[in-house]
Formats: sequence, C-alpha cells, structure tokens
Amino acid sequence: MNRSKGREISPFIAMEVLKAANRREQAGGEVFHMEVGQPGTRAPSKVIAAAKEALDRQQIGYTDALGIPPLRAAIARHYKDFYGVELPPERVVVTTGSSVGFLLTFLSAFNKGEGVVLAEPGYPAYRNILTSLDLVPVGLPCHAETNFQPTPELIDRLEDPIHGLLVASPSNPTGTMIHHDELGALVDYCAERKLQFISDEIYHGICYEEPATTALALTDDAIIINSFSKFFSMTGWRLGWMVVPEHLVASIEKLAQNLFISAPALSQYAAVAAFDCMEEMEANVRVYARNRDILLREFPKLGLTRFAAADGAFYVYADVRDFTNDSVDFCTRMLNETGVAATPGLDFDPHRGNGYVRFSFAGSTATIEGAIARLKDWSGLKKGSR
Amino acid sequence: MNRSKGREISPFIAMEVLKAANRREQAGGEVFHMEVGQPGTRAPSKVIAAAKEALDRQQIGYTDALGIPPLRAAIARHYKDFYGVELPPERVVVTTGSSVGFLLTFLSAFNKGEGVVLAEPGYPAYRNILTSLDLVPVGLPCHAETNFQPTPELIDRLEDPIHGLLVASPSNPTGTMIHHDELGALVDYCAERKLQFISDEIYHGICYEEPATTALALTDDAIIINSFSKFFSMTGWRLGWMVVPEHLVASIEKLAQNLFISAPALSQYAAVAAFDCMEEMEANVRVYARNRDILLREFPKLGLTRFAAADGAFYVYADVRDFTNDSVDFCTRMLNETGVAATPGLDFDPHRGNGYVRFSFAGSTATIEGAIARLKDWSGLKKGSR
Repeated sequence: MNRSKGREISPFIAMEVLKAANRREQAGGEVFHMEVGQPGTRAPSKVIAAAKEALDRQQIGYTDALGIPPLRAAIARHYKDFYGVELPPERVVVTTGSSVGFLLTFLSAFNKGEGVVLAEPGYPAYRNILTSLDLVPVGLPCHAETNFQPTPELIDRLEDPIHGLLVASPSNPTGTMIHHDELGALVDYCAERKLQFISDEIYHGICYEEPATTALALTDDAIIINSFSKFFSMTGWRLGWMVVPEHLVASIEKLAQNLFISAPALSQYAAVAAFDCMEEMEANVRVYARNRDILLREFPKLGLTRFAAADGAFYVYADVRDFTNDSVDFCTRMLNETGVAATPGLDFDPHRGNGYVRFSFAGSTATIEGAIARLKDWSGLKKGSR
Repeated sequence: MNRSKGREISPFIAMEVLKAANRREQAGGEVFHMEVGQPGTRAPSKVIAAAKEALDRQQIGYTDALGIPPLRAAIARHYKDFYGVELPPERVVVTTGSSVGFLLTFLSAFNKGEGVVLAEPGYPAYRNILTSLDLVPVGLPCHAETNFQPTPELIDRLEDPIHGLLVASPSNPTGTMIHHDELGALVDYCAERKLQFISDEIYHGICYEEPATTALALTDDAIIINSFSKFFSMTGWRLGWMVVPEHLVASIEKLAQNLFISAPALSQYAAVAAFDCMEEMEANVRVYARNRDILLREFPKLGLTRFAAADGAFYVYADVRDFTNDSVDFCTRMLNETGVAATPGLDFDPHRGNGYVRFSFAGSTATIEGAIARLKDWSGLKKGSR
C-alpha cells in the first residue's frame, strides 16, 4: 500500500542549508553559521536554575491547557512593565512555541477556505501552516518603498477575498518594523473591514533604533503571538504565548485541550524566572547590535549595497541581484567556497526570493567577523561573476 | 468586532471535572482523584538526572524536526528489546507528545473530507482533532461483545466512505486490548481496502494479562503513535514518537518543520535515559496492578457489576445504567457527596456515554482504598436511587 495522499508543503530551505552546513562541519570544514534564526546564547541563568528546582520539586505533569497561572500572571505583568499596557492574565494563552500559537490562531479565528494576508517576503511557516489547515495564504508583494511591510493602500489592491491580516514587526527576514502610527492605520483598516488582525511580536525586545509597539496598545481585538525563543533565548524550550480577545478564550482553550493538552510543564515553571533576567537579555541584544554594526559597515564594501532596514530582529535581507538570479545556487556556492552559510530568499518570497539572501547575525561576533573576512575575496561577489 | 468564526469543538468533560475537583480541594474538601489519565509517579530518576546534565551542558536549541539522533536510535532499539522487532531509526519521528503525533498523522495521511474509523467509546481528542482538520471521524459503536474494540465485521457495516482506521490497544477508556490475531485481521482488512492503519500504542507496557502486540510486528504500512507520558510517567514533558512507513517520512518532516520546528529539546535529551529505567517503570505498573485488583474485587460489591476487561492501561470503564441515565449528573453528585472524582462516559462516547463512567487507577493505592470506602455508603449506588 502506498497512498499518495496528505498535504504536501514546501520544505524550509533554511533547514536544508543547515543540513549541508552540518555535513561540511562534520567533514572538518569551517562553517560560519548565518543561516539559523536562533540566538547563539543559552537561556538566562535564573531560568536554568528554576528548571533545576522544578525537576526536584514539581511533578512535571499536565498543566492547565492555557498555562500555569503564575506564568500567565508573569506574562501579563510583562505587558505593564515593558509596554505600560494593562492586560488581565485571563487573556494570556501559553503555547508550545509560537508555532502552536499560529495553529491555534488560524483554527480559532478562521473557517476553511478563508484568506489571510501575508507580507512577501515573510516567515515561510505562516504560508505553510495556513495551507495545511485548508486556509488560503494571500501573498502581498512588499517592496523597499514600504519597508517591505504591508500598508492599507497595498492591501486595497488585492483582488482575492480576505478575512485576516498577519503582520510581523520586526519582520523575519527583513528586520523592518511597522512604526506606531502605521500599525494604528493597519489596525483601523482591519477593524473597519472586520478582518482579524494578527500581530507576530516574536522579535520584540530585539530592536536597535526604537522600541516596537505592541498591537495590544492599540486594540483588544488583535491576536498577538509571542515566544520565549528569541529575546529570551529559549528556542529549544518550545514555549510561547498568545494574547487573545476575550471572546476567543473559551474556544482556544478547547482546541488547546484537544490538540496539545498543555505546553511543556518544565519550560513553563522555568520561564516564570525569565522576566527577572532582563539585564542578561539586554546584554545579548548588545551583541546583536555590535554584529549588526559590523554588517552594515562591511556589506557595502563587499558590493552588497541594497538591504532592508534591519531595525530589529537579527537579520540582514540583502539584494543579491547584481550577482545571481538563483539564490539557492548562490548560497550553495557561498557555503562550499567560503564556509558562510546563509538562507536563500526563496524561503521567504516564492516570487522574488531568487534575488535575495537572508544573513542572520544572532551568532557570535567572531562568526560575523570570520564570515566578512572570507567573503572579501569571494569571486561570487565580484560584479559580472554571474 | 466579534467574528463568530473558527472551529468549535467539544470540551474535554474530564477537564471540567478536574476543575471542579480542584475547586473542592482548594476549599478544604477531600478529593479522591480518579478522573485524570496520568500517572501519580514522577519521571524515572535517571531521566531527571539526564535533564539536569543537559541544563548544564547543552544549548537547548532547536533540534532536527524529526528528533535528536540518539533519541531516535534509542526508540528504535526499544522495539528490538521490548518487542523483538527490527526498526531503522530513520522511520522514527519524535513528537511533542502523542498529540502532535496525531496531528502529523492526520495531516500527512489524509486529504480533507476523508473519513477515519474510530471505536466508540474512545479517546475524545481523536474525534476533535480530526474535526478541526476538516477530516471526518466515523464512529464505530463497539460493545462488550467485541471487547469494545473494532472488528472487520463491524467495520463492514459502516455506510460512510472511509479512508483509515485508528485503533488503541490497550484502549482509553476501556482498558481492553486487541489480541495478536485480531490485530492481524484488522491490519489485513485495511491492507486489502487500502485504508491507512493507525495504531495508538500509548498504553503499551501497562498490561496485566499479556503483553500488547505492536502493529509494527505485523506491517510496515501502519502509522504507530506512542509517547513517554504513560508507561514512562513523563506527561508534562510533552514527548512522544511515531513510527511511520518510509514513504511518509519526507512529507512528515516538512510538516513538522513548518508546524512545530521541533519537540522540546530538554525533554529529548532527558528521554534518552528513559529506556535504562525499566525496573522503575515496572514498579509503577505493579502499583497499578494492585489498584486494579482492589477495584475488580470491590466494584461488584458496590453494585458495579458490569465493566470492560481492563486488561491494560489504568482505567475501569463501568456501566452505571442501573443508577443513572445521566453520567455527568452522576459524576457531579459523586464528587459533591463523596469526594470521588471520575469522568463521565460522555467524553468517550457521545451516544451511549450517559450510561458509563471512567475510573482511573493511575493514582496511589491510598486514593483507591479511600474512594472505595467512601463509595460503600453512597446513596447514588443504591439500586432504585435513580
């Protein structure tokens, strides 16, 4: 028997690059990891200590589907401390990473066949999760002129039926942000048209020019997705959260009970301590800022003169059209010839991604400096090499 | 804005009972927890030690979407050690609990609108996950005559179009098992009709009369779901696994990358040690066996004379039709009047569940003995009390 069935989705090309980079490393080759979207740092020290204490004292059993009450309360307090916004803990939903936040969002807020607007370029899992749930990703081509972010005017040009808008600020892969007033305009646009507004705030806290605005400061109707993976440096702990409108709490609770039972208990006990580690996390952000400074200074010297603003997150999304019209081939050659691993834009933009590459600067400064040194002499970045 | 949209599913009534039981406990009332399907024991000691070591030594970052290689290898070895079946580690998929195993199974093996046969009574999340993914749960009424399990003859009577069969042995809520030859007959039935066979083996290892047969011993075409939650006593670690046919590995990997990134890394590092703790887990099973003996001896004296075989898992599914035609009301009164918390059958069987109650004996022997003592004088179990 070989039923050729089920829902086929695209692979993360980033993961394929990671595999190739790991193979090279295992064969003794040097690799400068700029392909992975995760901090090189470990979880904050108090989180590690809290995890050990929980291992000694707690049962590590199933928790409430919406999360343990102390963690929901700590997250609610974080909105007060970090943004100055009041939030009742009852609207906080603890999830198994932001991944499950998206699954619960899409399942609770949309009926099958409905369309959700996504900026292109954008995080590829948005599109792939929507597709696997029989929803329709409606790609919105965004260019440098609008900071690679959606605007009401751009959305107005779409012809497909739409039922929601998902924005990410800072964005993966571009690092660009939607400033306070622009976010307000998008929120109003959605409210007027009864579109569900979804705000992916996973890179909040990692901003270089100005702090990010949470959609919660503007509306109680948005669904907000966040996570302990990036700013809190806890990727493998698989822990995130949502802030949801009151009227969705009950249906999300039932979905979470049935689909996931609960988020990992040990991660939940440990994460309560994460909010007491702001200094440690700020120190991580200072490393990213230094790495970013190096790239912004050195990339133009390499001929990489056009890239998105990189105001937040830890990515530079560079236009490589002077050198290639096939970003997968470009990245493969770059890895093989220089050891620098980066992600082809095709992951983030199926239409124009062949002209772009995402470089992550979440690693160490030594990694960034090493990569720049290797790229200086690389023939792939000589004009006319194409 | 209040879009009344999204996919609505039934709540776990068990969770509502748990909430009521917790309220009673917090108010100082005595509660005998027989409603929860999780071991009262902690994770094995070597698992706890391995978790602490990982906290000191590992990055706790994202892992391969299919799981860390040492864990996939350890799971493959377990099939050799425990069942005598050879399994290449490449067919093992590590998941965030069996919950994510079901999501990946249903998404990878079926197209929307397809029907999957489920025994009634059965685990309610099967039905609810299928529904939320736009698949069709096809309930198969199973009675005491077939041990509450599906048979080819019963399936033949179904009129709806079907594309797969999901079996659980030992079963939740009944504890009944599908013996080796019967499992073979179901596997053959599915092979002949090109139905995807799915075997939920989460209660394997917790068997009182004879060991359970894994579907892997009979076919390479089944999808097998298992977990560290029950036998390994690691519910809150949210870690499970699947064994999948070779031809599904690639599409499941892509789904897992996009929908979940990876299972919790700390749980994965720790679980590698779980297979070295068989004695500790066997000791847990001996406690369940003792609890079961008490229930099988005492229930008939209470007037509960009809219940499923309870050959495995840690549940007695009792027929309470002599006392009620509303199992939710029955359980509510039982909790209020005796402190014994159990789950109404309605969770497991929407049609006949009002005549049944599931009692879990996964807790301590003191809990079981205390519950029996309280139920002895309870008016709700006097005939004619209805």
